[in-house]
Amino acid sequence: MEYTPQEFDRVLSSMCTEPHPAAREAAVEFLADNPGDPASYPDVAAMEADVVETLGEIVGLDDPYGYVAAGGTEANLQAVRAARDLAETDTPNVVAPESAHFSFQKAADVLDVEVRLAPVDADYRADPDAVAERADAETAMVVGIAGTTEFGRVDPIPDLATVADEVDALFHVDAAWGGFVLPFTDHEWHFGHADVDTLTIDPHKMGQAPIPAGGFLVRDPEVLDTLAVDTPYLESASQATLAGTRSGAGVAGAHAALDALWPEGYRETYERQQANAEWFAAALRERGYDVVDPVLPLVAADLPDSTFEALREEGWRVSRTDSGESRFVMMPHVTREMLDAVLDDLDALD
Amino acid sequence: MEYTPQEFDRVLSSMCTEPHPAAREAAVEFLADNPGDPASYPDVAAMEADVVETLGEIVGLDDPYGYVAAGGTEANLQAVRAARDLAETDTPNVVAPESAHFSFQKAADVLDVEVRLAPVDADYRADPDAVAERADAETAMVVGIAGTTEFGRVDPIPDLATVADEVDALFHVDAAWGGFVLPFTDHEWHFGHADVDTLTIDPHKMGQAPIPAGGFLVRDPEVLDTLAVDTPYLESASQATLAGTRSGAGVAGAHAALDALWPEGYRETYERQQANAEWFAAALRERGYDVVDPVLPLVAADLPDSTFEALREEGWRVSRTDSGESRFVMMPHVTREMLDAVLDDLDALD
Repeated sequence: MEYTPQEFDRVLSSMCTEPHPAAREAAVEFLADNPGDPASYPDVAAMEADVVETLGEIVGLDDPYGYVAAGGTEANLQAVRAARDLAETDTPNVVAPESAHFSFQKAADVLDVEVRLAPVDADYRADPDAVAERADAETAMVVGIAGTTEFGRVDPIPDLATVADEVDALFHVDAAWGGFVLPFTDHEWHFGHADVDTLTIDPHKMGQAPIPAGGFLVRDPEVLDTLAVDTPYLESASQATLAGTRSGAGVAGAHAALDALWPEGYRETYERQQANAEWFAAALRERGYDVVDPVLPLVAADLPDSTFEALREEGWRVSRTDSGESRFVMMPHVTREMLDAVLDDLDALD
Repeated sequence: MEYTPQEFDRVLSSMCTEPHPAAREAAVEFLADNPGDPASYPDVAAMEADVVETLGEIVGLDDPYGYVAAGGTEANLQAVRAARDLAETDTPNVVAPESAHFSFQKAADVLDVEVRLAPVDADYRADPDAVAERADAETAMVVGIAGTTEFGRVDPIPDLATVADEVDALFHVDAAWGGFVLPFTDHEWHFGHADVDTLTIDPHKMGQAPIPAGGFLVRDPEVLDTLAVDTPYLESASQATLAGTRSGAGVAGAHAALDALWPEGYRETYERQQANAEWFAAALRERGYDVVDPVLPLVAADLPDSTFEALREEGWRVSRTDSGESRFVMMPHVTREMLDAVLDDLDALD
């Protein structure tokens, strides 16, 4: 059986993308290095420290702690794990908006923590009052999303930080997808904008690094130390990781992507893809579809089932939200020509 | 700052190695594919199913279930997680020999499960009586190691399976490192040799696949389904993974390595590296050092601290066991010439 890599010219559903050429090159070079074993592979471990520094700059932390995780799920899980272990209760809970990524439910299951989901407002953003109603003395962590998976929404991060503070919980921001576009917007979303304790930002999504390159950042090194319990002979932050052996390709790829793109390359990508999102949203509205206004470069539109299926049959990789809207994620590989071709296919449907 | 990938010509400490050339090529080709999203990346998902089939053949399972994990830590953690969730107790424990990899302690911490470590025998193997003494009605899982990290020992797997059976616990075998050499020995270690429920076997160690390519195999699909709780709309085994986004490079690399090397290439590697281990062990003994007999291709020898430090200063990447022996892991990149050079450096120390 012959297998071929996925061509990106029809992918509109993924939150991953083609790595930047420099990132691809670095990943290939460091494919066999293991940043999980710094004594054997010191250079890639040093590269990881550089990546954490640059991610700190992006997320408003002068003195960042953290590491390159396998992805957003690991970073979110590690945040919940730290909160669980620091909480002074045997029955901790996490309060998150219902727009939170599925990984929080996975983390809850793995970590045996209750997740309380709060309804979102009419614009799909977390409602701080609804979150506050569900938070109590046993709340270990409050979660805000900066760039939701389904609609690309940015929760009111400072207000959620206040809710977390009121119940003495840690506050985590999931910017796994949004972290590389938000710096070029007016949103308040990071450590510099609110009392954020932990944050997920994935180089392998909008950061144009190869998989696996997630990012887990923390303000207080004590939070990271919590994850390193039972490794007293290991000093460095990297031993707080969930995995043992880790990918040198991911670390080196993230290093090269950040070097090539932060900040101007990411700004250009954001501006181009935000313009594409707005243009595509307008084109869908002209055709009579209900479209969720693209706050970030992600368009959700209420296409009929048959239309969605027809696009899939044409080879377009599209997916749907839980409530049924078709999602078009304006990842860096998505071009105006691709979107034009989608519109042509829509127009040809009857 | 200029960083370079680690040259393997001085690495004797790592359980990772240079990927096979075909594996490297495949990894590069599928670097941007995400097997965690089979609807968007169907080919790499199909490759993963092939990998699970071949791993099943290696570990004695006709009808294997499982997936390509990020590494042995994830696979071990998932095994403990499944056992915890299937156990009919709120205070489950796991009984493992004290030779078990550190990842079991990490899993215990993440999963809030007690790990009970049983002393090993004079040959560093699990003592079934000592394991049985620590097992009780709340034991969710018994662990056996097929190729220990420190001394390359193979536990008495059938006897440990009996202990697990007596307390109605799942039985997990950690063959993360040993799984690609054991098929060419007389050891009893896999699903076909005993009532094993779950098993870890890492293509990115002796399997010569690039990182990240761990392997998690299970006999009963119900065990895998346990890990997929709360994803009722997802049918396939791959949704039981810990991570969301996963590495196409790891899956495609493992696919290519297995295709190129199973079984004859792995057999040749085992025979060459076992001979190197025995030759090196004899050479160290001739020089008056205490050497732990290499049952598998891994030599542990009691070098004085100053000698160990001198080797490190010569640029050799060596590490030590908890009890202080220097470890030399005969990974596929380790040559007779490298070992000769180590001996020359030892002889020059006087």
